[in-house]
Amino acid sequence: MPWTLARRAARLNPSTIREILKVTERPGIISLAGGLPAAETFPVAAMAEATARVLRDNPREALQYAASEGYGPLREWVATELATQGLSVDAAQVLITTGSQQGLDLVGKVLVDPGSRVAVESPTYLGALQAFAPFECDFTAIEGDEEGPLPEALEAARGARFMYLLPNFQNPSGRCPSAQRRAQLAEKAVAIGLPIVEDNPYGDLWFDAPPPAPLSAQLGIGENGGAIYLGSFSKVLAPGLRLGYVVAPKTLYPKLLQAKQAADLHTPGFNQRVVHEVIKNGFLNEHVPTIRARYKAQRDAMQAALLRHLHGIGCRWNAPVGGMFFWVELPAALDATALLDRAVEAGVAYVPGAPFFAAPEPRHANTLRLSFVTVPPAQIEQGIAALGRVFAQALG
Amino acid sequence: MPWTLARRAARLNPSTIREILKVTERPGIISLAGGLPAAETFPVAAMAEATARVLRDNPREALQYAASEGYGPLREWVATELATQGLSVDAAQVLITTGSQQGLDLVGKVLVDPGSRVAVESPTYLGALQAFAPFECDFTAIEGDEEGPLPEALEAARGARFMYLLPNFQNPSGRCPSAQRRAQLAEKAVAIGLPIVEDNPYGDLWFDAPPPAPLSAQLGIGENGGAIYLGSFSKVLAPGLRLGYVVAPKTLYPKLLQAKQAADLHTPGFNQRVVHEVIKNGFLNEHVPTIRARYKAQRDAMQAALLRHLHGIGCRWNAPVGGMFFWVELPAALDATALLDRAVEAGVAYVPGAPFFAAPEPRHANTLRLSFVTVPPAQIEQGIAALGRVFAQALG
Repeated sequence: MPWTLARRAARLNPSTIREILKVTERPGIISLAGGLPAAETFPVAAMAEATARVLRDNPREALQYAASEGYGPLREWVATELATQGLSVDAAQVLITTGSQQGLDLVGKVLVDPGSRVAVESPTYLGALQAFAPFECDFTAIEGDEEGPLPEALEAARGARFMYLLPNFQNPSGRCPSAQRRAQLAEKAVAIGLPIVEDNPYGDLWFDAPPPAPLSAQLGIGENGGAIYLGSFSKVLAPGLRLGYVVAPKTLYPKLLQAKQAADLHTPGFNQRVVHEVIKNGFLNEHVPTIRARYKAQRDAMQAALLRHLHGIGCRWNAPVGGMFFWVELPAALDATALLDRAVEAGVAYVPGAPFFAAPEPRHANTLRLSFVTVPPAQIEQGIAALGRVFAQALG
Repeated sequence: MPWTLARRAARLNPSTIREILKVTERPGIISLAGGLPAAETFPVAAMAEATARVLRDNPREALQYAASEGYGPLREWVATELATQGLSVDAAQVLITTGSQQGLDLVGKVLVDPGSRVAVESPTYLGALQAFAPFECDFTAIEGDEEGPLPEALEAARGARFMYLLPNFQNPSGRCPSAQRRAQLAEKAVAIGLPIVEDNPYGDLWFDAPPPAPLSAQLGIGENGGAIYLGSFSKVLAPGLRLGYVVAPKTLYPKLLQAKQAADLHTPGFNQRVVHEVIKNGFLNEHVPTIRARYKAQRDAMQAALLRHLHGIGCRWNAPVGGMFFWVELPAALDATALLDRAVEAGVAYVPGAPFFAAPEPRHANTLRLSFVTVPPAQIEQGIAALGRVFAQALG
């Protein structure tokens, strides 16, 4: 039959990470690939109590069609929580989404035309590239350093529909701009009239000190401010609930809401009520520190393993102060994509760095991303040791 | 700040129904407006048991990131269930979606270009118009009769990317084409090379006899067949779970899957596992007949009320043999949109018919949709009586 694909379908591609994840589901593979939170941190008992309560006290409301904006008390909770981070918004500006990935899709749908430009970090979150690309934008990659994008490099983004930024413990690079860098970035964005889409899935996962206030706090969201802010419950509770949110200027909110209605009517009300029931009395204040402590220990384990097994063969990396990822540069002669099969044969998986670049270049071929949160320290050591052997062998 | 909207944002509009629903949430309003299943039918006890079991036996898997395709056993269940309806597909062709609304969004994203044509029934499901319109298609409305679209009228759809059809107890008209009509439609679709997107949220809600086999069964889905089929758990379990599915030809499946990854990574695994736990041992065989019996009694109550209060003033309607809706034609002098405020003042709400037409014309102004499933018989009688008074008064 004569199905005709939309032109944008050419910009849809298999997710490299999701394809790699299939490989890593094979028993015996130590996966440092996926951005999978440690399942041990999922608050199963609290979830079980909350679901039982929701289904006892408000089953019909939880299981019926619900408002596209999201569950009112959860939207209020988000607004209150953001205020503690210095970001002042009304609950009416909060749109609950089916994971923050959906927030990216809605932003793309409402703001991106074919041939328009979207500025991104270099490297940037792969899922954002995948969300925006089908709307047929051209990406402008903004150069940066170990701290984040360079303020003067934002000049290249002039005229873009927006710049997508993930300032806190970025996926994949782990970097986290200082307050000063953020102020410079915000100033430059205002100067050139560049709206910012700020994604913050990892901000709560800091190890020694919380990250500086979001860029959105400086740019303002408000009535018609220069920022959209995205958050998620995936990393502080559990990703299988698919619960995130978008906070938008009041002038933009109605279009995002209409896009949400068209996309899936509303995010499951059951999930929203259960999560609100879990968190409403300060649960996260007790819970998130346990995640931080675990991840910090695993960060330390990976740092030690990298020093033991990859330092001597000329690899370089940053030591992240939060989040989930190490970003590694292999010796220039090595190609992380080409070596992945050998690593998997050796029982360990990672994600090559190239897909995280809007326009991958040969100079990106030796990069890769390692998650330190998915497997415990003993397996981290074992996995990095295996990688060390694979890379050493490849170097001859 | 200079946010620039994408051109497609002009094709995003507030959902008439969702706006009306806000009005109808006011206490004391009898809502015949929304397509809300009767909350009394939600299987709360089974849900509570299933969630407890999932969180006891597989909490980590249920709460972790999961496959974009959906939960394997649920996909198998769908394929097996469709086989009983004469539709033979592999589980590998089933994509679990966040409600079937998301299926429509994904279909639009993958198949609809700006300026391309999408054929729809007249009237058609409003949510489908809202899902497809942002991809900037032109709609071609296919004329029909009380049974459904006219096979010869499909000629007008020649060259369209696809025709969207909701054959079983259509929303909003309630109509249900016979097996003969379906065969004629399928034959004509094949003759003119017109792919079909078949939506079936209401097929299980039959009162006296099940509807004929889906059009997709005649067209075939298979490797590269002429149909995509959408289903939902919203009407047989509960809509607040947001669980639906798309079944696509194998050649199209990868693009829909990639669009799904970009849209929300995956549908909540927690919800998928809970629903599978509820239904895996034949629960729906016991449960759905109780919904049918309830809705049939409410259909009868509305039919009786319409005869009592609207027949005498020149209204006409079909008597649906399944589903959730009556479609009413008022005397030509009345405008259902204009009269809605007066109806709400009188304590009853409905949805005017005009938004269900791709290109509303003055001749559609006297149509409206009534849901008979949301409120019990006594309120149905009370609501229709109030409508009768409002319309009689408007006629002078």
